[in-house]
Amino acid sequence: MWQTERVQMARRPGSTFSVDDFRCESVAVAPPKPDEVVTKTAFISLDPYLAGMMKHWQGPEPDWQQGIIVGRMVGQVLASGSDLFAEGDWVSGACRWQGIECQRAGALQKISPEQAIPPQSYLGVLGTSGMTAWVGIHRILDVQNGETFCVSSAAGMVGNIAGQMAKQRGATVIGIAGGAEKCREVVAHSGFDACIDHRAQNFAGQLAAAAARGIDAHFENVGSKTLDPVLAVMNDFGRIALCGLIAHYLDDQPIALSNFRRLLTSALSLRGFRIYDYFDDSAQAMAELRAMLKSGQLTVRETITRGLGNAPQAYIDMLEGRGVGKHLVQMD
Amino acid sequence: MWQTERVQMARRPGSTFSVDDFRCESVAVAPPKPDEVVTKTAFISLDPYLAGMMKHWQGPEPDWQQGIIVGRMVGQVLASGSDLFAEGDWVSGACRWQGIECQRAGALQKISPEQAIPPQSYLGVLGTSGMTAWVGIHRILDVQNGETFCVSSAAGMVGNIAGQMAKQRGATVIGIAGGAEKCREVVAHSGFDACIDHRAQNFAGQLAAAAARGIDAHFENVGSKTLDPVLAVMNDFGRIALCGLIAHYLDDQPIALSNFRRLLTSALSLRGFRIYDYFDDSAQAMAELRAMLKSGQLTVRETITRGLGNAPQAYIDMLEGRGVGKHLVQMD
Repeated sequence: MWQTERVQMARRPGSTFSVDDFRCESVAVAPPKPDEVVTKTAFISLDPYLAGMMKHWQGPEPDWQQGIIVGRMVGQVLASGSDLFAEGDWVSGACRWQGIECQRAGALQKISPEQAIPPQSYLGVLGTSGMTAWVGIHRILDVQNGETFCVSSAAGMVGNIAGQMAKQRGATVIGIAGGAEKCREVVAHSGFDACIDHRAQNFAGQLAAAAARGIDAHFENVGSKTLDPVLAVMNDFGRIALCGLIAHYLDDQPIALSNFRRLLTSALSLRGFRIYDYFDDSAQAMAELRAMLKSGQLTVRETITRGLGNAPQAYIDMLEGRGVGKHLVQMD
Repeated sequence: MWQTERVQMARRPGSTFSVDDFRCESVAVAPPKPDEVVTKTAFISLDPYLAGMMKHWQGPEPDWQQGIIVGRMVGQVLASGSDLFAEGDWVSGACRWQGIECQRAGALQKISPEQAIPPQSYLGVLGTSGMTAWVGIHRILDVQNGETFCVSSAAGMVGNIAGQMAKQRGATVIGIAGGAEKCREVVAHSGFDACIDHRAQNFAGQLAAAAARGIDAHFENVGSKTLDPVLAVMNDFGRIALCGLIAHYLDDQPIALSNFRRLLTSALSLRGFRIYDYFDDSAQAMAELRAMLKSGQLTVRETITRGLGNAPQAYIDMLEGRGVGKHLVQMD
């Protein structure tokens, strides 16, 4: 038996999240039965998609109905009741927000950290973030050499990787991020041609100036505040990949767009996508991302918070746009 | 020299159109110079797309800057200064809203009315309305046998033809129209499987009931009031052709959609289109539409107003949803 800490929901959050919406408790973990594995979590992934589930206590896993958060982790096997895993193996998979957990062996994937590929890569570049960027660039937008590409949440992991991939395909890459410092980092560290601060007073004007030849392909992660000014400068027949709407996960208000008419008048296309529809592409995507990571073609930025007890504040910081790149909690 | 009546803008319309926004005056038309043709208009087309130009006195033709309306007509040649046309020839083309007009011969197309194809067909089924429906069904949505297809403004010419084409492709066809009487007509005369009144109190519920298996392909002509409930019942990977936004041509307000998030969560695609990008398809489209018309596969509905002086009220009636099918002014 192990005793471990778990962070879960204490109440349903209101229109904004607060640390008081979460609570921490001690739970006991039993030794693994046959086909089970006990894992010690190393990193927990802080992802925007969890916000809606946290708010409504509803998600694909029944745990959510009790306010238990089910996210993604990488960790090591402490004890194994399965032939698939041995003690010390690195694994990734779903996880409750707790230090030690007993899981079905079949629900875990073995991972292979190595030089230049630390374990937490499997939660970012080699996880859903990298896969999401890959699908958007390759399967939805099919970004071409010479095009102008734009991505919102450019300092976030998905947007940042998407921009780097578009750049490698020969596009001029414009990012949108929240705050001047983030924008500077995106240009300096991730090789974007420009990055516009959506909090700046003249955001729309700055975007139009940066995209002097118009935008051909746009990757949307945020919502109306970024999509609306982008719509105004899309070129005829421009393509928009709708990957996320982080600004609209916490309320049920209608989404209003002043420039919605441009979808018609400029013959634009807008396509929503979900990575779980692209399972068949995952081997190819992961191989390509792994190669890019090893060759140094991808720059990875991380915001790491230490200690499970700090996960609620770290999650709120991520939602509110503080920090850059992949947001992770590193367990003590 | 001929004297003729012209209807043009008297002032810029406000948030709703009034007949006082238009005025009628008498104008003189000179005999044709070389390469010019004088035509006598038989029918003028009343089209929603004109509303924005009427409001702003801006359009592709410089005439708009003086508030002169430039629409589409069919008529006959009164006098010709061109080898291309002889007196009595039927033609279609752009026109000011006036009875007699002198035009460049090169701007007119000869048409061939015959049994089952009256001249005004060239403003509807064999004009931009038919072409618009054809492009939406064939090039944007590619409606398949067994799918559920939905179209708003189903009693309007574009929507009505689109629904009939989708039906011929083997789809279950649901229309949306304004008013119970229109809905009855769409089912009784145009062969739709159902037609839902968007003015009914429980519109969204009725739509969901009619589309029990969800909607696979949707053809949008109206705007948020029809698109929003449709988004709620679209199937995963559903396609939306954005053809028009008639409800939003008269104001510049943002377009708000409560179900915009479904574009993401159901991986939908939405694509705006403009028929002038499909010029290369027009010969094929027209041949197919002509054949359907002659074989009786297409039912055509018209709302005809007599007399140019009644054109302003007829235009307002069309905008406000009175009448069905193609809206035309027949000249005295």
